[in-house]
Amino acid sequence: MASQTECLIIGLGVFGKSLAESLKKQQAIVVGVDINEKSLKENQKFLDQIVRADATKEENLRVLGVDNFDYTFVCIGIDMQSNLIATLHLSNLGARRIIARSSSAEHSLILQKLGAHKVVRPEIETGERLSYEIISRFDHFIKFSENLAVVQLEVPEKMWGKNLKEMDLRKKYKINLISIKRNEPFVNSDGEDTVLKDLETVPDPDYRFKKFDKIYLVGDVSNLQRFKEDYLSGDTSAS
Amino acid sequence: MASQTECLIIGLGVFGKSLAESLKKQQAIVVGVDINEKSLKENQKFLDQIVRADATKEENLRVLGVDNFDYTFVCIGIDMQSNLIATLHLSNLGARRIIARSSSAEHSLILQKLGAHKVVRPEIETGERLSYEIISRFDHFIKFSENLAVVQLEVPEKMWGKNLKEMDLRKKYKINLISIKRNEPFVNSDGEDTVLKDLETVPDPDYRFKKFDKIYLVGDVSNLQRFKEDYLSGDTSAS
Repeated sequence: MASQTECLIIGLGVFGKSLAESLKKQQAIVVGVDINEKSLKENQKFLDQIVRADATKEENLRVLGVDNFDYTFVCIGIDMQSNLIATLHLSNLGARRIIARSSSAEHSLILQKLGAHKVVRPEIETGERLSYEIISRFDHFIKFSENLAVVQLEVPEKMWGKNLKEMDLRKKYKINLISIKRNEPFVNSDGEDTVLKDLETVPDPDYRFKKFDKIYLVGDVSNLQRFKEDYLSGDTSAS
Repeated sequence: MASQTECLIIGLGVFGKSLAESLKKQQAIVVGVDINEKSLKENQKFLDQIVRADATKEENLRVLGVDNFDYTFVCIGIDMQSNLIATLHLSNLGARRIIARSSSAEHSLILQKLGAHKVVRPEIETGERLSYEIISRFDHFIKFSENLAVVQLEVPEKMWGKNLKEMDLRKKYKINLISIKRNEPFVNSDGEDTVLKDLETVPDPDYRFKKFDKIYLVGDVSNLQRFKEDYLSGDTSAS
């Protein structure tokens, strides 16, 4: 069993809190720093240790022994000046891997020059992802690179009753079906309802698609669009 | 050719700006509303029309004809009260599809009760994603559901020179390779450098993996971890 990952989170606003909670769920050791007592209290249950301190003072970070942590996160959001100063100090103090929050392209460049090893841009990344979902009209649309994307959609009506072999997506569109989320009809006392079944990671080529199934497809953006135009035209189930 | 998607963005901070820019790039018609003149000016180039108005006043939204837009986005971040009031008015005015920004689980529930059709949580989604990347030690780690994820990693040393057929990832780990990002060595006047080649969406089963290749794998989280433990143990290239 691998040893626990030790994380220091500076700034416990919405982003820092989400990170602390999620790291804790995955068995990391999480120490939180904030200047605000209330923020620390709200996050207490996700933290192994809380430190009330101003992270823009190098001395405050030095006493924490920042170089002992596997990762240090600068999650200060609104106050760009404090965000940059804390990053500078962490770098000078030899923090091993600094991940800093940025709010613009320029901000990211400054953070990198100051020594941040990785920069994350919560609002910008989510804004971009959302815009692709809206314009592509897929339920979910995740771009990995300039071209490659994974999309999720409800099985279009034109696919009901067909199986993967017949559709030949790989050959016709150069896209791959990576998973099917099936709904099993469930009849309750008031009539019919639907209940989600487990995900199928490796789809069976003989499985016949049913109404309410959800599928995940991967491929080039242009090929996914081509598939969509063929299969979703005149079908409003995915809008 | 489909008609252009018409979007109304309320609140042009970091998130609203990212959304406006990305929607504009994809040929949407984007109208922006903010109470702050400076925010509007900064976003002018991404907007077809700018409106300086307080979106917490129903009358101001009424005159904009919010029900004519395909999508209305409530991107107000810090001020939860204004965020909720704007959403309430949009819903009452018959906005067709309201997408609102949330900063907590409770906030999301209130937005849904007020009529938001979709809720996005930029900091929370990014915080969760980042925590999975850190703990999984993959370069990129995107979870689609409780179990299914796509990861990106540099080809581990143990895979160099092997091909997909020999590795039999589908059978051994129930995971699928969905793409390879190849690096082609490029020699410049100062020595050797590397240049990225295009992505390969459908990998060739005979292709032999090389140093610097990046691969995308999809599968159950537990199966991806199993692969990682077998292939990355004693290899620090992916850390």
